[in-house]
Amino acid sequence: MNTYTIEEVTGVVDGLLNKVEDARISNIAPPLLADENSLALALGEEEIDNLSKTKAKAALVPLGVNIDTLTTIEVERPRLAMMKLLNMFYKEPETETGVHSKAIVHESAKLGKNVSIGPNVVISKNVEIGDNTKIMANSYIGSGSTIGSNCFFHANVNIGDRIQVGNKVILHHGVCLGADGFSFVTENPDNIEQARKDGAISGENTSHKIFKIPSIGSVKISDNVEIGANTTIDRGTIEDTVIGEDTKIDDQVMIGHNCKIGKGCMIISQVGVAGSCVIGDRVVIAGQAGLADHIEIGNDCIITAKAGVTKSFPEKTIIVGAPAVPRKDFIRQLKIMRDAEELIAKFKKYEPMLKAFEEETEGKE
Amino acid sequence: MNTYTIEEVTGVVDGLLNKVEDARISNIAPPLLADENSLALALGEEEIDNLSKTKAKAALVPLGVNIDTLTTIEVERPRLAMMKLLNMFYKEPETETGVHSKAIVHESAKLGKNVSIGPNVVISKNVEIGDNTKIMANSYIGSGSTIGSNCFFHANVNIGDRIQVGNKVILHHGVCLGADGFSFVTENPDNIEQARKDGAISGENTSHKIFKIPSIGSVKISDNVEIGANTTIDRGTIEDTVIGEDTKIDDQVMIGHNCKIGKGCMIISQVGVAGSCVIGDRVVIAGQAGLADHIEIGNDCIITAKAGVTKSFPEKTIIVGAPAVPRKDFIRQLKIMRDAEELIAKFKKYEPMLKAFEEETEGKE
Amino acid sequence: MNTYTIEEVTGVVDGLLNKVEDARISNIAPPLLADENSLALALGEEEIDNLSKTKAKAALVPLGVNIDTLTTIEVERPRLAMMKLLNMFYKEPETETGVHSKAIVHESAKLGKNVSIGPNVVISKNVEIGDNTKIMANSYIGSGSTIGSNCFFHANVNIGDRIQVGNKVILHHGVCLGADGFSFVTENPDNIEQARKDGAISGENTSHKIFKIPSIGSVKISDNVEIGANTTIDRGTIEDTVIGEDTKIDDQVMIGHNCKIGKGCMIISQVGVAGSCVIGDRVVIAGQAGLADHIEIGNDCIITAKAGVTKSFPEKTIIVGAPAVPRKDFIRQLKIMRDAEELIAKFKKYEPMLKAFEEETEGKE
Repeated sequence: MNTYTIEEVTGVVDGLLNKVEDARISNIAPPLLADENSLALALGEEEIDNLSKTKAKAALVPLGVNIDTLTTIEVERPRLAMMKLLNMFYKEPETETGVHSKAIVHESAKLGKNVSIGPNVVISKNVEIGDNTKIMANSYIGSGSTIGSNCFFHANVNIGDRIQVGNKVILHHGVCLGADGFSFVTENPDNIEQARKDGAISGENTSHKIFKIPSIGSVKISDNVEIGANTTIDRGTIEDTVIGEDTKIDDQVMIGHNCKIGKGCMIISQVGVAGSCVIGDRVVIAGQAGLADHIEIGNDCIITAKAGVTKSFPEKTIIVGAPAVPRKDFIRQLKIMRDAEELIAKFKKYEPMLKAFEEETEGKE
Repeated sequence: MNTYTIEEVTGVVDGLLNKVEDARISNIAPPLLADENSLALALGEEEIDNLSKTKAKAALVPLGVNIDTLTTIEVERPRLAMMKLLNMFYKEPETETGVHSKAIVHESAKLGKNVSIGPNVVISKNVEIGDNTKIMANSYIGSGSTIGSNCFFHANVNIGDRIQVGNKVILHHGVCLGADGFSFVTENPDNIEQARKDGAISGENTSHKIFKIPSIGSVKISDNVEIGANTTIDRGTIEDTVIGEDTKIDDQVMIGHNCKIGKGCMIISQVGVAGSCVIGDRVVIAGQAGLADHIEIGNDCIITAKAGVTKSFPEKTIIVGAPAVPRKDFIRQLKIMRDAEELIAKFKKYEPMLKAFEEETEGKE
Repeated sequence: MNTYTIEEVTGVVDGLLNKVEDARISNIAPPLLADENSLALALGEEEIDNLSKTKAKAALVPLGVNIDTLTTIEVERPRLAMMKLLNMFYKEPETETGVHSKAIVHESAKLGKNVSIGPNVVISKNVEIGDNTKIMANSYIGSGSTIGSNCFFHANVNIGDRIQVGNKVILHHGVCLGADGFSFVTENPDNIEQARKDGAISGENTSHKIFKIPSIGSVKISDNVEIGANTTIDRGTIEDTVIGEDTKIDDQVMIGHNCKIGKGCMIISQVGVAGSCVIGDRVVIAGQAGLADHIEIGNDCIITAKAGVTKSFPEKTIIVGAPAVPRKDFIRQLKIMRDAEELIAKFKKYEPMLKAFEEETEGKE
């Protein structure tokens, strides 16, 4: 167990120390769960209130918060400080350096220095793996794929043939890279093509054969990307599906074939991006949002949760609703609803009068 | 093949037997698929009608349904009876007691009595597994995790380090417990923080570095929990992500870091619960619903399918729509739409008159 | 590397050759990425424009497009031609015929001719596998399951006990067939049953025990079905869950217990179909749409992306929105919103006049 002096902790978070008594820190905890060796973490109001009941001798607080009875470290950006603190106590999942005796590594594969290849891992023909990369149990790497250095793949990662993964990439359980794109064609126009053209379905193509369009493209994952559990990224039809540097993807996200995702994007859980979308840099796509195929999203856009994006948007747009519109239009839609309710009530008041006028007018004619 | 007399079956479901002729029951089937050894299951009107065409000699019917030509068992709660009947014929997936020769069990792991550890299962350092627990092929249990007794894990379950699983827990294929929470921080405020504060995005942080906030918490699964295929439950940042006793989770559900889910909840397929939510007991969350982070849902709430829940709700609320509101408000919204349509038609009628009045009035001025 | 003459390529796509100069084709590429051995693919306007900048000597273009400076192949249905072209260059993931020495095959299993069983694959008791079927690494096939001929299962496929898979079926990474249906019952009516009956929740069933309804049915996958990565299909309660011939299912789709999906359907990513739905033939269900349980969808329907389908629809319906309605009703709803906005503005204009009339009228009384 790591233990630090309060001065050491203060140094790591670059904070302002208000020392009431000495403290040695061996864990981080919310105020009510803290013990006397904890640094109590009080980032928000409720937690700051709870400091009156904590057993901790020391606490991390936002700049400007004064607690007389406790040693405190004030910081300007508490979430950044929390990240640094947690890194002091974080332990990576245990792995052993080397190739496990129950791993299956093709003789043609090239492994870097200090790699860790877990039990039941299958490394196929002509795979290349960079230095210090760790691949945990039951993972599969298909023929001709290249994996960079300093990657960490948790148990049961699935990587198809000819996939390219950069350096410092983290993949969680059940990630699937390189399934075939969902792409088919029929001899004659199918129902979708008909509906797009005519707005209706004839239903006459009852015997049409469905042909699979093979995916000869690949998937390219750039450096510093992290991908959450059970996320799937399909290979491109001809070009590669690309995930840009520093982009972070949560669990159960689906990225379709041919997509180009920019750098530094945040894609939250259960988002679906259909085929051939082009997403700019630093775009946030919140949970359960969906993008139709062939859409372009500019840099620095935020797509809010559950949005259904059916068209392209320029940079810095906050995109809301389904079908999705810029935030200001969404707010206008909500206002129409409220105004309509008010209007309905008012109209009810005036209606007898209008009816009377009408009868009167008709009487005159 | 198990065969039962009609009297035995009646006893099991605690029903009322109307015996027309003797019957031996060796399977359960809907009326149209039943053979002469079936108990025909007629829980609803359509199936009751179909009893006139069944080959079965006996049928299970709701209390008060009379069929002269068939032996029937009347029951008050047919679904409960169906559960009991199916248990008479259910066979658990086949497993062999003991540790398979191709399983990889760390020497420090402690295994209970009568466990079944399938082929290619990896049990890491210091894992503890209770009595009678069955872990099927290709599953992975990370270091320091504890699994209770009488659990059943189907093939290919992934459990990270230091996860706690209670007794009688059922995990289906591809369940992932303990991926890292999706939690990041930048040196300076990012687009999301800016948008929350200013309602707009400057897009100036083009070079901000994204730091991962490590997850040092764990996942705790309580007794009698069942978790569906490919569901993912992320570990907590500091505290654990907790699933309460008797809670049942369907396939492809995502539970974010730090969430506390109560007891006896039902979470249907493709639901997403973002980080740090607190869900009460006996809460139902229907398919594809999503909850934003840090939301509290009281006991006995029902969140309907596809709801987008953006704020907390008190107990016993029926929560509908996106953004979600209590059911009565949702019904009001639908009424506004209907009333608005009516109003638009009425107004069209009165408009020429109003226009005429207006011109007249202006003429007077 | 395969290389073809331009005449050979023209023959394969059954196109119209306009030969400017000779060309040998060794790859397919979009115009801007093409080299001198490429056939440039110009299916849409943007790509056709880009042909002026391509390095390719030859291009595939839609019928009627004339490019003087390039050898072109004109085709009537470019997407169909693209499929044929890609098949000329596609290479299936590498597998070796035979049973890998690290596969675990039960002695009672029956394997067809020319099968390929990869490393760590587990084939359980009484499994039958047809000729030429390939099962890649880390996959699991449960007891009593039958797999047809000419199937291709990518790494890490999970198939439970007694599942039936037809011929020429493609399963991608992480597919789970045969998890238990999500089906439970309580001794007394639960919150959902109460809410359906009374429209409200009493919250009195705080101690109700939840019983699992076991799934004794199976899953039946018909011939020529393809299923995307991490898709889950649950087994039926009594009858089987059935996927019809030629139906194509994308990644992360959830098909609930007892569903009967017709032939030639296209089910796009992240769709959820709740239990006991009956879907006709050639139905398209677009991304993230959800269907409540026990719904019937007629042949040739199109359910658009994110639709929330709460009731049955007849054949050839285009189904839109949540709660979903036929497309024409959805368009009417959008029109009401626009009309309401207009009406609100108009009413504001007339309101002072109406108010004045009202006061006048009241004055008269």
